Amino acid sequence: MVYLDNAATTIYKPPAVAKAVCEAIETMGNAGRGVNEASLKSLRMLSETRKLLSELFNFPDQNRVCFCSNATEALNTAIMGLFSKGDHVVTTAMEHNSVLRPLYLLSDTGMIELTVLRVDKVGRISFREMEESFKENTKAVIMGHASNLTGNVVDLKRVGEICRKKNVMLVVDAAQTAGAIPIDMVDMNISVLCFTGHKALMGPQGTGGIIVSEGVDIRPLKSGGTGMHSYDRTQPEIYPEHLEAGTLNIHGIAGLNAALKYIVSMGLDVLNDKEAEFTKEFVQGVQNIPGVEMIGDYSDLEPTCHTGIVSLNIGDYDSSEVCDELSVRFDIATRGGAHCAPMAHESLGTKNRGAVRFSFSHSNTKDEIIYAINAVKTLATE
Amino acid sequence: MVYLDNAATTIYKPPAVAKAVCEAIETMGNAGRGVNEASLKSLRMLSETRKLLSELFNFPDQNRVCFCSNATEALNTAIMGLFSKGDHVVTTAMEHNSVLRPLYLLSDTGMIELTVLRVDKVGRISFREMEESFKENTKAVIMGHASNLTGNVVDLKRVGEICRKKNVMLVVDAAQTAGAIPIDMVDMNISVLCFTGHKALMGPQGTGGIIVSEGVDIRPLKSGGTGMHSYDRTQPEIYPEHLEAGTLNIHGIAGLNAALKYIVSMGLDVLNDKEAEFTKEFVQGVQNIPGVEMIGDYSDLEPTCHTGIVSLNIGDYDSSEVCDELSVRFDIATRGGAHCAPMAHESLGTKNRGAVRFSFSHSNTKDEIIYAINAVKTLATE
Repeated sequence: MVYLDNAATTIYKPPAVAKAVCEAIETMGNAGRGVNEASLKSLRMLSETRKLLSELFNFPDQNRVCFCSNATEALNTAIMGLFSKGDHVVTTAMEHNSVLRPLYLLSDTGMIELTVLRVDKVGRISFREMEESFKENTKAVIMGHASNLTGNVVDLKRVGEICRKKNVMLVVDAAQTAGAIPIDMVDMNISVLCFTGHKALMGPQGTGGIIVSEGVDIRPLKSGGTGMHSYDRTQPEIYPEHLEAGTLNIHGIAGLNAALKYIVSMGLDVLNDKEAEFTKEFVQGVQNIPGVEMIGDYSDLEPTCHTGIVSLNIGDYDSSEVCDELSVRFDIATRGGAHCAPMAHESLGTKNRGAVRFSFSHSNTKDEIIYAINAVKTLATE
Repeated sequence: MVYLDNAATTIYKPPAVAKAVCEAIETMGNAGRGVNEASLKSLRMLSETRKLLSELFNFPDQNRVCFCSNATEALNTAIMGLFSKGDHVVTTAMEHNSVLRPLYLLSDTGMIELTVLRVDKVGRISFREMEESFKENTKAVIMGHASNLTGNVVDLKRVGEICRKKNVMLVVDAAQTAGAIPIDMVDMNISVLCFTGHKALMGPQGTGGIIVSEGVDIRPLKSGGTGMHSYDRTQPEIYPEHLEAGTLNIHGIAGLNAALKYIVSMGLDVLNDKEAEFTKEFVQGVQNIPGVEMIGDYSDLEPTCHTGIVSLNIGDYDSSEVCDELSVRFDIATRGGAHCAPMAHESLGTKNRGAVRFSFSHSNTKDEIIYAINAVKTLATE
């Protein structure tokens, strides 16, 4: 199988990941109150992983790195926990349902006022419109760092500056960028970062997190046991326990720990450059094939502007049909249909057909890219 | 290390568990919309695991078995999603904070009316008091199947009958019993079952679930991508997607799948009988040691009445101190302090000292039990 569905989940994980998970399953207890060696071993690993993540995202306080089961949980925690009645929230038409649906829930029940910034035909927002959308009661901008449909990266530094000027929080969905491109929470003025562990970070599924800047207060989505302050009626105010009720996915996080060390040892930029090289090669190979329609902006494929996602359609075919053909005839794994980003499809004119999404990883090979280009050629000329 | 902290997390997992997790990490994609082989492989495994769980708990509809990251998430989903303003909910003083804290949140904000049934000196509720607590607006009884402090099992069949008579839902926290003793959702009249995968079920951490009977409606705790109905503003109404936003912990669930098959192949009763044998041996060995105070009811240690938990205190020692001694001097892993069950400690008179909890698994050995008994003897006579 030629696996080009890395934006859904990376299937290549450094061998150290599975090894670390196995070792954790065999030796790690539950963290928290226990003082036995199995329990302490878990606690030390969790602490080290928080440190690795805070370093990766240039965040000063590792105790405010809280583990979640995925980016969706992190985003729900942020969105359901940040706002008071009457707050105004700004988002964009490019967002994934993990951002839109919790926001709709709040706006449809009258809790918040919601502005959804429109995008142009290739999915770009207007920074001027964003700034103009701000009001007295604007509490936050919530948006993805890169689109899961087009791979286009938003200039978060610029968004962060706009937010800083108006004292508005910036909440970032980094599902597609954590581990793929550099994220600097201080430089980008990010208040809350939501990420998943199983995509570009190459950790196991069931891992991810929410990083909450000092001074930002989030009501917990879940409450329960924390192994501390057991006699309080509510979750402890102290982080990370405030947002970590119940037993963590310690086994999975041990794998994420190994993946983070791999990224550090290889160099994030080295991995990204390789992914960008494949993305460029693929775009160059397919964009001029007659019948191929590119979805999104492919004018700048540098890693700071574009992740390893390329979406396209072929002729009049439904994207799911193309996807099936790629799988059955060529054994190429891609993803078709609507990518849980309904307004993005509406904005980009792909609501009816969806889009065939190819997503690359540094672990792919040049031969695989050429093979995929030829498969697209074959399908487009049939 | 002699690991007697199995109620926090089992550290012995059948070898097939780690193997299945590793294989999943190496071969499984993201389930959902993808039609490629890596994605379909995940989907088939998830479906098989739902079937195994529905068979284990005698539940008729595997599609209403929804995966969660742990029992805490399942309980928060149930408690935050079931009630309307003015509903009356009944719980007990033996509950874990994963039940109490979400309930407090709802009652402290005036959403629900809450009755907490008191317990006697060994932690037993009165079924008569439960029945008498029911009112016109009583919507649910929410309680644990077994106490995480004393190991005492509640006669859920009897609770289920009381609930059936009054048309009240029974929501069960099976954190300590799923995989440890038989649970029959039909026979016990359970409306919602919340369980974790990493304790007696011997799966990896980060796994668990909520099983929702037909006709019971739960508002989702999280919303987001589901790979279906992408253009709807809310989570799909269809189960399991209704309660499963975002990427599941497929790697962990693959391990749970292997653990469930192990339990089926060995026989739940065979495993439980062995655990009960160790529990009995330990209780007989420690209960008459001068200075040892047993916490809970140890009058019937049959698996249907008692899980593999034994809590005790020694002389005037703080439980955490005893726990430290057991770890440092004897290399025995137990758990001390408050066990996230504040009202249980208050009811049983152990609020100040907590309790030293020994928790056994069928994977322990007779020698380990004798060693632990002798350690308690040594500490009690010093």
